[in-house]
Amino acid sequence: MIATSMGKRLRMRRVLPQGKALVLPLDHPIYFGPQPGTEDPAQVVRLARLHGATAVLLTAGALRSAVDEVGDLGIILRIDATLSHRGGPDTVMHLLHNAEEAAALGADMVVVNCYVGMGDAAVESSLLTKLANVAAECERIGMPLCGEIIPRVPSAAMPSSEDLALAIRLGLEYGCDVVKTVYNGDPAGYAKAVAAGRLPVIMAGGPKASDELAIFHQLHEAMTHGASGAAIGRRVWGSARPAAALMAIRALVLDGATAEQAIAIYRRENV
Amino acid sequence: MIATSMGKRLRMRRVLPQGKALVLPLDHPIYFGPQPGTEDPAQVVRLARLHGATAVLLTAGALRSAVDEVGDLGIILRIDATLSHRGGPDTVMHLLHNAEEAAALGADMVVVNCYVGMGDAAVESSLLTKLANVAAECERIGMPLCGEIIPRVPSAAMPSSEDLALAIRLGLEYGCDVVKTVYNGDPAGYAKAVAAGRLPVIMAGGPKASDELAIFHQLHEAMTHGASGAAIGRRVWGSARPAAALMAIRALVLDGATAEQAIAIYRRENV
Amino acid sequence: MIATSMGKRLRMRRVLPQGKALVLPLDHPIYFGPQPGTEDPAQVVRLARLHGATAVLLTAGALRSAVDEVGDLGIILRIDATLSHRGGPDTVMHLLHNAEEAAALGADMVVVNCYVGMGDAAVESSLLTKLANVAAECERIGMPLCGEIIPRVPSAAMPSSEDLALAIRLGLEYGCDVVKTVYNGDPAGYAKAVAAGRLPVIMAGGPKASDELAIFHQLHEAMTHGASGAAIGRRVWGSARPAAALMAIRALVLDGATAEQAIAIYRRENV
Amino acid sequence: MIATSMGKRLRMRRVLPQGKALVLPLDHPIYFGPQPGTEDPAQVVRLARLHGATAVLLTAGALRSAVDEVGDLGIILRIDATLSHRGGPDTVMHLLHNAEEAAALGADMVVVNCYVGMGDAAVESSLLTKLANVAAECERIGMPLCGEIIPRVPSAAMPSSEDLALAIRLGLEYGCDVVKTVYNGDPAGYAKAVAAGRLPVIMAGGPKASDELAIFHQLHEAMTHGASGAAIGRRVWGSARPAAALMAIRALVLDGATAEQAIAIYRRENV
Amino acid sequence: MIATSMGKRLRMRRVLPQGKALVLPLDHPIYFGPQPGTEDPAQVVRLARLHGATAVLLTAGALRSAVDEVGDLGIILRIDATLSHRGGPDTVMHLLHNAEEAAALGADMVVVNCYVGMGDAAVESSLLTKLANVAAECERIGMPLCGEIIPRVPSAAMPSSEDLALAIRLGLEYGCDVVKTVYNGDPAGYAKAVAAGRLPVIMAGGPKASDELAIFHQLHEAMTHGASGAAIGRRVWGSARPAAALMAIRALVLDGATAEQAIAIYRRENV
Repeated sequence: MIATSMGKRLRMRRVLPQGKALVLPLDHPIYFGPQPGTEDPAQVVRLARLHGATAVLLTAGALRSAVDEVGDLGIILRIDATLSHRGGPDTVMHLLHNAEEAAALGADMVVVNCYVGMGDAAVESSLLTKLANVAAECERIGMPLCGEIIPRVPSAAMPSSEDLALAIRLGLEYGCDVVKTVYNGDPAGYAKAVAAGRLPVIMAGGPKASDELAIFHQLHEAMTHGASGAAIGRRVWGSARPAAALMAIRALVLDGATAEQAIAIYRRENV
Repeated sequence: MIATSMGKRLRMRRVLPQGKALVLPLDHPIYFGPQPGTEDPAQVVRLARLHGATAVLLTAGALRSAVDEVGDLGIILRIDATLSHRGGPDTVMHLLHNAEEAAALGADMVVVNCYVGMGDAAVESSLLTKLANVAAECERIGMPLCGEIIPRVPSAAMPSSEDLALAIRLGLEYGCDVVKTVYNGDPAGYAKAVAAGRLPVIMAGGPKASDELAIFHQLHEAMTHGASGAAIGRRVWGSARPAAALMAIRALVLDGATAEQAIAIYRRENV
Repeated sequence: MIATSMGKRLRMRRVLPQGKALVLPLDHPIYFGPQPGTEDPAQVVRLARLHGATAVLLTAGALRSAVDEVGDLGIILRIDATLSHRGGPDTVMHLLHNAEEAAALGADMVVVNCYVGMGDAAVESSLLTKLANVAAECERIGMPLCGEIIPRVPSAAMPSSEDLALAIRLGLEYGCDVVKTVYNGDPAGYAKAVAAGRLPVIMAGGPKASDELAIFHQLHEAMTHGASGAAIGRRVWGSARPAAALMAIRALVLDGATAEQAIAIYRRENV
Repeated sequence: MIATSMGKRLRMRRVLPQGKALVLPLDHPIYFGPQPGTEDPAQVVRLARLHGATAVLLTAGALRSAVDEVGDLGIILRIDATLSHRGGPDTVMHLLHNAEEAAALGADMVVVNCYVGMGDAAVESSLLTKLANVAAECERIGMPLCGEIIPRVPSAAMPSSEDLALAIRLGLEYGCDVVKTVYNGDPAGYAKAVAAGRLPVIMAGGPKASDELAIFHQLHEAMTHGASGAAIGRRVWGSARPAAALMAIRALVLDGATAEQAIAIYRRENV
Repeated sequence: MIATSMGKRLRMRRVLPQGKALVLPLDHPIYFGPQPGTEDPAQVVRLARLHGATAVLLTAGALRSAVDEVGDLGIILRIDATLSHRGGPDTVMHLLHNAEEAAALGADMVVVNCYVGMGDAAVESSLLTKLANVAAECERIGMPLCGEIIPRVPSAAMPSSEDLALAIRLGLEYGCDVVKTVYNGDPAGYAKAVAAGRLPVIMAGGPKASDELAIFHQLHEAMTHGASGAAIGRRVWGSARPAAALMAIRALVLDGATAEQAIAIYRRENV
């Protein structure tokens, strides 16, 4: 059990009410512009609230336009951002806010990104420095920190379980309270990687795949091999039936459903 | 509706009294040197005040020499500047003031520039960092922020509506209260881009065109497709009849005139 | 009339007692080492005080060794410096002091250098950033700011009047109270450039010319075309008869003498 | 005797209770990911506590998950980190915390890394600047500082005793209280290098060698030639019998055993 | 007479009790590692105290181990350092402390290094910026500043007297209270260079020469041509008879002895 200050514990309840988190992220427009389904942040937050998410992950700006729909959702504030993809992909993410500003804005948790293993020492060092600085501030003010720590591997290749173990363990060493990272399809290796982190790991989604149902199987594998939750965006608000997708994922993540049960929910619900 | 602090709301009334803004910008000499019509800032501000602008956009230095003519105009303080065009064009704009200094100087709103999509990751990152820092400070002290967020495209080409949607949405995500950007001549796409921003969008003017009347048609299209105002400088104080130009634009922007009605005003008024 | 705080107004009286300034600069040794005539800062300040200057321009270090000779001279503190010319010419000038330190040291005005139009965007941006930062601090603490804003043109060529107009106007836009810049020998263009700045312009001297008397004609042209004063160093303390040179320049700058009258003074006085 | 503030002295007792330190470091996962034996920081700290270490060396993050096992062990907090070795080896180590944060987290001593002699002036200068900044803060707040100052020599080569003398003396000159560095196998030269530092020197371990017992001979040489302790990690928790390895090393470092006695302990204990 | 605050005057008495300074520097190990004679800082400080130095020049770290031997010696704290010469020679010296920290540590004067004329604009600018920043802080808190300002010329060549005049004058312009620089063997030019600085100049020693007695002649020339003292290290603690060397130098620097008298002392004393 990680030693956690009272402030962090009280805030973390909002995101992981029973130790599990179902996060609906909607920060994609800062990279890609408004994606179909994200035009109105308030609608996405309303979707999250009505269909079972425990938290939303978004920028302070988007939160400003969605605050009336928040209800009792946990607020994970993205406090960094890379440049728009109009300027080409980039791995250096500048800070939008510090943790103290996030606290003033009502955040229950902050998330910062950190790619590792990309083979560019200057960039990786600046990302880790950012993580260290935010972690130190979070420790001081009792703000939970979610490290989005993602191994960078040649595109289309999945990170190895050793890559994931390093990423997740860096979360521990750098003082994160939660790590958000990808699932790599190797259940046993993933379980070992999660165990070496000693902290809750949230499975990050990814782009919509050709096989719409693949996500359910992956989620079930991750949840049964150590994950404490999931953050799935594009495959919810980008789905033809967002509410059904979210309800099905909720069954998997929070209620212990099997992949088949979740798929059944998704097919049954017409919303 | 964006959640806005009381301080921001009270200041924004000065710039958008009925939710619409007609801004006369006169910050051009920091880039180009004094342009014909801008030699005396006080005269330009007087023109704005007498002929219907809701606000002026200028540097603190120019405001110092024009303060006696301000009246009840809203003050949008430019708090960044690029280098003089004697040194060649540049896209990095350094800060002249922070938001707190702007508040001390009597500003009702601050404006900072941010080009996006220019294909230079380091430059775009520094511009977005500037925007994030100013936005965080503005949030803290209740100062409205206008993001001048402009897609950079190969010269002479208009930005696409997707480019504009990204630019305007970045305004929302980064915590701006208003976005100032160009109109691209695609009414339906522009309307969609504006809608995804959930905040007032002010149409930026541009260099004087060969067709003096084209601006009236563009303004009418923008105003009837989501824009909440316009900031037109060169085609006002650079016009042979500045007062007539401003009165005509005012009819369009604040009073709902058609392009033809505005042109008639422009032709009728001999000032 | 530029809006000026009480603190700035009271301090500016020291430098421009009747709205005109005759400045004796002695900051050359930071660039070139001690020049003949500047070995003892106290002697140069004494010369200024006895023969009619309104102010001296020098570093805090030189002022420390000359303070007993200051009398009622205005003190313009140079708070930046470029590197020694032993290291080659350079255009980036680092700060020696901030404005608050200058106030603590008894300055009536601070001066910072800013070259424009040199075709090096990074350098020009860093110079303008320095100017903006100092201007903001000066505004806050009521310290008058003299911007030494000088167009950089290929050596031996004079800046055009458009160059000067940009330089002087930047002084206004960046919040300077006075601009110190060169005279370019085009009286009508210079007058227009000065007018666009809306603030006092002080003519900077230059290296000693082969024609010792040329300076008197240039000064008369500048003073009768908008200049509010002059800052002449090398042609005073570098002259064979420094007191005579200063007295002649004083007649021109403060008393409205013609170039011929000034030359007569210079020839008559044997000091 | 180095002049040491009361705060430093009281904290140093925890690490070197009788003037000798046996440190178990477990900060390796920040560079290499979790190593076999380090998966659970609490287990490693428990090992240290039960089998005779005086202190553990770890990150604040790892300490958070091991705090219940600390007992009366001294806490040496690693407050810097290089990048993960997934990104390639690197010599620039960014700060995770400052000394004040470390004090708030309960540290008895902080350790920062500084390679010297690597032939890259910019890197060495940034490392030494880091050391100087931390040292100045430690002096101010009474936090003992361990400088991990290690000569960088072509791989596989041992540093000379002159290299070690420089490294250890830099520890003194930069205000460290303890230096952690390698032993080079030259007893007489090492003794002279230690003497020139006037402060406690802790022998750093290294990767597991083919000869498992070599470490005992090296440790004995170092301890009998001036070392005040040792920090051995991989050859303890990476050993097949970690407790036995630690007990044997303890006998050598704290109890004055010979290498042969230590080896006998290692062979006898079956833990 | 330079205007000097009370705090500076009271502290300067410690270094130049009768207006003359005999400084024993022992900061060489930060560049070269421990040199023969400097292994124990306390012994070197004791040597200085017993045999007539007015001050020692050393790092805070070395002072910590020598504080019991200080007696009434003035303390000149070196607050910057270049990198170790294991990393190759370097001209950028980072700060170890600021002036306020130096005051807290009991310094009577701080010294910072500044090479000039080395033909590398970026390096020279960073050195001068360092000097300016420290000078401004020293002015504020009443800490005397010794600028170690040394013209960089091709190795083996002596700086010209014009180079020295620039270096010494920069000391004045940048707000130093004392300049430490080399003597160049041109008595008349040196005297003129010193005079243009209006402040005490301390002659820096150098590496041990083949002619052991040459230093006495150089010192006598410098002292009779304007120098206010000397800082001689290697030729004192690096001498076969350190006490004799120091006593002889003291006679020259503080008591007005001739070179021959000093040499006689050096030969007579067997210590």
